Amino acid sequence: MDRFAVVKVSGAVFDLQNRGGEMVRRVADQLRGASEEGWRVAAVAGGGSVARLYIRAARELGASEAALDQLGILITRANAELLIAALGGVAYPSVPQTLEELLAASASNRSIIVMGGLQPGQSTNAVAALAAESLGAALLVNATDVDGVYTDDPRKNPSAKRLESVGVEELTQLLSGSEHKAGTYELLDHVSLRILERSRIPTVVTSYEGILAAIRGEKVGTRIMY
Amino acid sequence: MDRFAVVKVSGAVFDLQNRGGEMVRRVADQLRGASEEGWRVAAVAGGGSVARLYIRAARELGASEAALDQLGILITRANAELLIAALGGVAYPSVPQTLEELLAASASNRSIIVMGGLQPGQSTNAVAALAAESLGAALLVNATDVDGVYTDDPRKNPSAKRLESVGVEELTQLLSGSEHKAGTYELLDHVSLRILERSRIPTVVTSYEGILAAIRGEKVGTRIMY
Amino acid sequence: MDRFAVVKVSGAVFDLQNRGGEMVRRVADQLRGASEEGWRVAAVAGGGSVARLYIRAARELGASEAALDQLGILITRANAELLIAALGGVAYPSVPQTLEELLAASASNRSIIVMGGLQPGQSTNAVAALAAESLGAALLVNATDVDGVYTDDPRKNPSAKRLESVGVEELTQLLSGSEHKAGTYELLDHVSLRILERSRIPTVVTSYEGILAAIRGEKVGTRIMY
Amino acid sequence: MDRFAVVKVSGAVFDLQNRGGEMVRRVADQLRGASEEGWRVAAVAGGGSVARLYIRAARELGASEAALDQLGILITRANAELLIAALGGVAYPSVPQTLEELLAASASNRSIIVMGGLQPGQSTNAVAALAAESLGAALLVNATDVDGVYTDDPRKNPSAKRLESVGVEELTQLLSGSEHKAGTYELLDHVSLRILERSRIPTVVTSYEGILAAIRGEKVGTRIMY
Amino acid sequence: MDRFAVVKVSGAVFDLQNRGGEMVRRVADQLRGASEEGWRVAAVAGGGSVARLYIRAARELGASEAALDQLGILITRANAELLIAALGGVAYPSVPQTLEELLAASASNRSIIVMGGLQPGQSTNAVAALAAESLGAALLVNATDVDGVYTDDPRKNPSAKRLESVGVEELTQLLSGSEHKAGTYELLDHVSLRILERSRIPTVVTSYEGILAAIRGEKVGTRIMY
Amino acid sequence: MDRFAVVKVSGAVFDLQNRGGEMVRRVADQLRGASEEGWRVAAVAGGGSVARLYIRAARELGASEAALDQLGILITRANAELLIAALGGVAYPSVPQTLEELLAASASNRSIIVMGGLQPGQSTNAVAALAAESLGAALLVNATDVDGVYTDDPRKNPSAKRLESVGVEELTQLLSGSEHKAGTYELLDHVSLRILERSRIPTVVTSYEGILAAIRGEKVGTRIMY
Ligand SMILES: Nc1ncnc2c1ncn2[C@@H]1O[C@H](COP(=O)(O)OP(=O)(O)OP(=O)(O)O)[C@@H](O)[C@H]1O
Ligand SMILES: Nc1ncnc2c1ncn2[C@@H]1O[C@H](COP(=O)(O)OP(=O)(O)OP(=O)(O)O)[C@@H](O)[C@H]1O
Ligand SMILES: Nc1ncnc2c1ncn2[C@@H]1O[C@H](COP(=O)(O)OP(=O)(O)OP(=O)(O)O)[C@@H](O)[C@H]1O
Ligand SMILES: Nc1ncnc2c1ncn2[C@@H]1O[C@H](COP(=O)(O)OP(=O)(O)OP(=O)(O)O)[C@@H](O)[C@H]1O
Ligand SMILES: Nc1ncnc2c1ncn2[C@@H]1O[C@H](COP(=O)(O)OP(=O)(O)OP(=O)(O)O)[C@@H](O)[C@H]1O
Ligand SMILES: [Co+2]
Ligand SMILES: [Co+2]
Ligand SMILES: [Co+2]
Ligand SMILES: [Co+2]
Ligand SMILES: [Co+2]
Ligand SMILES: [Co+2]
Ligand SMILES: [Mg+2]
Ligand SMILES: [Mg+2]
Repeated sequence: MDRFAVVKVSGAVFDLQNRGGEMVRRVADQLRGASEEGWRVAAVAGGGSVARLYIRAARELGASEAALDQLGILITRANAELLIAALGGVAYPSVPQTLEELLAASASNRSIIVMGGLQPGQSTNAVAALAAESLGAALLVNATDVDGVYTDDPRKNPSAKRLESVGVEELTQLLSGSEHKAGTYELLDHVSLRILERSRIPTVVTSYEGILAAIRGEKVGTRIMY
Repeated sequence: MDRFAVVKVSGAVFDLQNRGGEMVRRVADQLRGASEEGWRVAAVAGGGSVARLYIRAARELGASEAALDQLGILITRANAELLIAALGGVAYPSVPQTLEELLAASASNRSIIVMGGLQPGQSTNAVAALAAESLGAALLVNATDVDGVYTDDPRKNPSAKRLESVGVEELTQLLSGSEHKAGTYELLDHVSLRILERSRIPTVVTSYEGILAAIRGEKVGTRIMY
Repeated sequence: MDRFAVVKVSGAVFDLQNRGGEMVRRVADQLRGASEEGWRVAAVAGGGSVARLYIRAARELGASEAALDQLGILITRANAELLIAALGGVAYPSVPQTLEELLAASASNRSIIVMGGLQPGQSTNAVAALAAESLGAALLVNATDVDGVYTDDPRKNPSAKRLESVGVEELTQLLSGSEHKAGTYELLDHVSLRILERSRIPTVVTSYEGILAAIRGEKVGTRIMY
Repeated sequence: MDRFAVVKVSGAVFDLQNRGGEMVRRVADQLRGASEEGWRVAAVAGGGSVARLYIRAARELGASEAALDQLGILITRANAELLIAALGGVAYPSVPQTLEELLAASASNRSIIVMGGLQPGQSTNAVAALAAESLGAALLVNATDVDGVYTDDPRKNPSAKRLESVGVEELTQLLSGSEHKAGTYELLDHVSLRILERSRIPTVVTSYEGILAAIRGEKVGTRIMY
Repeated sequence: MDRFAVVKVSGAVFDLQNRGGEMVRRVADQLRGASEEGWRVAAVAGGGSVARLYIRAARELGASEAALDQLGILITRANAELLIAALGGVAYPSVPQTLEELLAASASNRSIIVMGGLQPGQSTNAVAALAAESLGAALLVNATDVDGVYTDDPRKNPSAKRLESVGVEELTQLLSGSEHKAGTYELLDHVSLRILERSRIPTVVTSYEGILAAIRGEKVGTRIMY
Repeated sequence: MDRFAVVKVSGAVFDLQNRGGEMVRRVADQLRGASEEGWRVAAVAGGGSVARLYIRAARELGASEAALDQLGILITRANAELLIAALGGVAYPSVPQTLEELLAASASNRSIIVMGGLQPGQSTNAVAALAAESLGAALLVNATDVDGVYTDDPRKNPSAKRLESVGVEELTQLLSGSEHKAGTYELLDHVSLRILERSRIPTVVTSYEGILAAIRGEKVGTRIMY
């Protein structure tokens, strides 16, 4: 059977205003690399700044939180299409919109599948964890805009230290202050952690420059321990 | 605009082996009553013992946790069909399978809509909370097999006391021991509570005999405070 | 082109209350065996006792016969998911819900496809026959809870004798007392027989222990002659 | 609740080569009449000569019987679109492709719904019977190209006599010679009769000139007795 | 039957970076106004600057023109969701993704429907024209970022003069220089004009401040003559 | 990556009344030939005389132009099914109904995909051009009922001369008199030409006897130059 790695790609990679498609191409290159080394990959694109732009406007206009999530999901799918464009023929050519469609895509002849969010009330981190469960993935790489898990938010606290590994319960404590509103930041939300925990999915948190290294098993980022 | 109440109907109502459709009919009578008093209702059926039967067998056979959720969802949809049968022509005649389909059904001429689960990784409690958000519901009734929230699990601790109201954070503490595996018991899971909290949805936890009373605003069960 | 065997798997295999997943695993082992011997397989799961439990309750609650069929179909799909779980990576990972979805799955890289019922008014036996037509199957195995066709219902008439082969018209006579209500017992219904007949599909009726033997062309059960 | 009449419209009505849309308009006028008299109507269009043209060509080209059915279904849907065009704004504007879509359409604000076939292995007569079950219809009108049930096929046997009423079992005997191949003629097939029987649906067989009279309860055609 | 106005809402209205949801709200107010005056409205949201941002990035990454269109369509649907949020309960709660879904929505009890693009190779102007045909709309308002059709592009040629009315052929000449690449500017493309022409749909081109005035039949913008 | 040829198959090939499936088989043989020579093929079936029959009747009955297109699309899908039947196991077994479904089919293990029309307002020529874009096709063959592009309509002007090649702008001029109404004749419509132009898709116009020759690069028909 195929060996799958699931990669959550930070919404920050899709910062089109400031960086165009430059970072998307770099992520695509790493995924193509993994594919050439025998992996199949399911990537899950995050929302990023455009998602937040829409969510902010819609909140002002009176949308429900569920509708805000739905709007964010549309943008993650647009981001997924960008990644598919950058991957070319090695990618499954459309964006699965349910776990069932992901499974159908996994039975095709394309080695990389790219999706966005699925349903309101579920972060793209949770989607990545569910995808890993569904595909029986060997590895989940959470590729974010910092290079691992720190003892505190490194953007707010410059003396925070990066951890080489972290227990899932310790991580839950560390991140417990995070919010549930659509469009807010949190490295890994509670649900995602519970899914990782229930299926003990081998997980590495790293930067989007470290994806291929993490898939190769090199020592990058922070490993979650169960 | 229509005034919606969302009702989460405990899986225990669908205990066909021991009770046949008897309790389903009693729940249907209450929902029909609410409809006659001017409410529109979106009901979400839980899984109950048949769901647990399937989940146990599938887990032994090696299914992933996501696949177990999928299986549970199928059974909640069968339960939803039972409730539709008991409601007759006042019910929307099919079971929405996504929030979008729920919204489409809400634009029809039927006053009651019944659904089950939606996607792996989301309990039917979470579905009920998302439905309440999406519909801008005035009220969420969590109709379960105990008559409210207790200071401890009343099935294990007979000296537990029922609360008239409980703060959402206090409730989070109370229920924090609950599990995330498919088919396990938990009154209200973390995600559901976070969704209720983010949208401050007026919520009452009561028994499935108390649904109509709760919708009428009578003093039953436990009210969640924000 | 691929050589397909279609296997109707008796609902009796999914007797979870009494047997758990034990018989499901045994059926899965035989299908996997056929796959290893070069066959592609489309399995159709029957409803069994859980289907009958739901149908009985829904009939009491006033559901239409079409709604009862729909409910039975949901349970056959849950049964199909169990068989997929037991098959693991060799199975197409989701349950086709139309003949078109079956055909799409047949163009994937998975050797075994599992489905349940499709539409009200059509037994799972009829679905198996239509699947055999659509896939141009070389063989249809009707794996049921008796080891072949008898001169009379063997459960009611202990002196009934098993037939090695039976003409399709003779079989029609033999089974002509059977009912059309959802959830009733009948070895092979009239429609199924007419579909088998119109396409002259090579068919063996055998027990669910005899599936692999029947696919191998060994002499088990009863062969239908045209 | 709405009072539904289901009308099976003979494929002969859609004889475009010889009659253009003339008969379609006459059927539409009658359905509109029924709607003005307070009925809701679900019409099911048959296949007719164009369906037979396609089925014959496809059979020569080697299509499976299931594929032939699929082709016939496409043409019945084209016929359904013609009827919708002739009905204008009183008709539900698209053609339901499953019973579930029919039910959704029944919860809309349009009084007439038009569909064609649903799935291979099911005649449009069977679809009409299932629709009648699903909608809890008060009446099924089988509007065909003869003016009722005769003691024998009136096209072959000019001395055949029209019956005022006929028992469902007697009718089964009368029609028992009919075929199951896609595109062959048969007034009412076995499955349709079994569905009518299991739900005891009040049914009148009449010509497509007699639809409105039949709905009004006037004495036309042949009534099926249970 | 319902009287429908179709309104193409310029992508420029969704300029979230610079204006937030301010213009969206103003458009929503006008559509709600039309609804209160007895109209049903189908609005079609354009793409605007975010669509162009994505299209530019995807083109650099090597996407096909069809994929660029697909990406633009996703953004128009996000824009449509914003307009739905601003409209609240008067709007159909989800975004139709095909003309068939639009027709289904038109049979609901909501007076305003909002959609975005449908398929690659079709501008949102063409979608608006097709929607007008499908719904038998009494009027199409093309609400853009200029206040009508000018003798030349008013942004490039300040001496261009606004026309009170223009023949469809003259308009074709005027706009004949426009491009077919995804994301390029053109007031009305060739296909849209041909659809308007074939169905002679009464059309007014005006600014997004003039929508309600145009629906009321006041003298704003430019009227297309056939 | 796979090398794709897209083939638009003239509706004239599906002239069942006069020719049965004879020409369909000849087209199928050529596509199978191309497949055996290493090509993957996406064929798009046109409407032909049956489409025109339905469109004429529906127009008389008062259908909108969009509804006429929809009707034509149904018939093109029936034609596509005929071609699939003639191709047998080498064909993807169902007809994609959107570009997304085409892309999914392109990730299957079947070498030939057959589709019909997609959406109102888009000719099957435009669909073929979009399919070529989406698949990154190496070649588009427009197989029609004349053997190439002539200096004038060869059916009306017998002195018209066939061109070996023609520039896309010259071709636009040549064909500029063509109509946009559903069911009218036009070799290549304006939109199709604009899509071919924007993506510079290598295109040959030839007769349906010349398909394989054109795919092989032999000198047949008329080549479009950019
Ligand atoms: N503090 C508490 N107060 C009340 N009940 C509690 C508490 N803690 C745990 N419980 C348990 O929660 C159970 C209800 O949760 P359970 O998941 O079984 O019900 P449900 O959500 O209604 O069912 P389903 O998930 O099948 O729809 C009660 O029967 C009780 O034993
Ligand atoms: N002539 C006969 N020969 C064999 N079995 C018969 C005969 N007539 C009736 N039967 C009955 O048919 C039963 C099998 O039909 P049943 O519908 O229970 O099985 P199934 O189709 O395998 O199950 P499901 O419909 O749930 O998938 C046998 O157990 C037997 O009692
Ligand atoms: N006993 C009978 N009484 C009346 N008609 C009969 C009888 N037996 C056979 N027929 C034939 O049945 C025909 C009607 O069946 P047919 O399938 O052609 O019609 P339909 O169902 O209206 O058409 P379609 O299947 O295309 O919708 C009649 O024209 C008649 O020749
Ligand atoms: N003759 C003309 N009269 C008016 N505007 C013209 C003319 N020719 C070109 N234009 C340009 O067309 C523009 C409107 O087309 P554009 O595609 O930008 O708008 P839109 O269709 O409203 O936006 P979107 O496609 O994002 O929904 C005007 O801003 C103007 O610059
Ligand atoms: N300059 C031209 N060169 C060649 N054919 C032309 C020209 N101008 C018009 N035609 C006409 O175009 C016709 C082909 O267009 P038509 O739409 O009939 O075919 P098609 O696209 O193959 O069919 P369909 O649309 O049903 O799939 C020819 O038969 C010819 O009469
Ligand atoms: Co949380
Ligand atoms: Co939790
Ligand atoms: Co029968
Ligand atoms: Co029969
Ligand atoms: Co143009
Ligand atoms: Co044109
Ligand atoms: Mg059976
Ligand atoms: Mg043409």
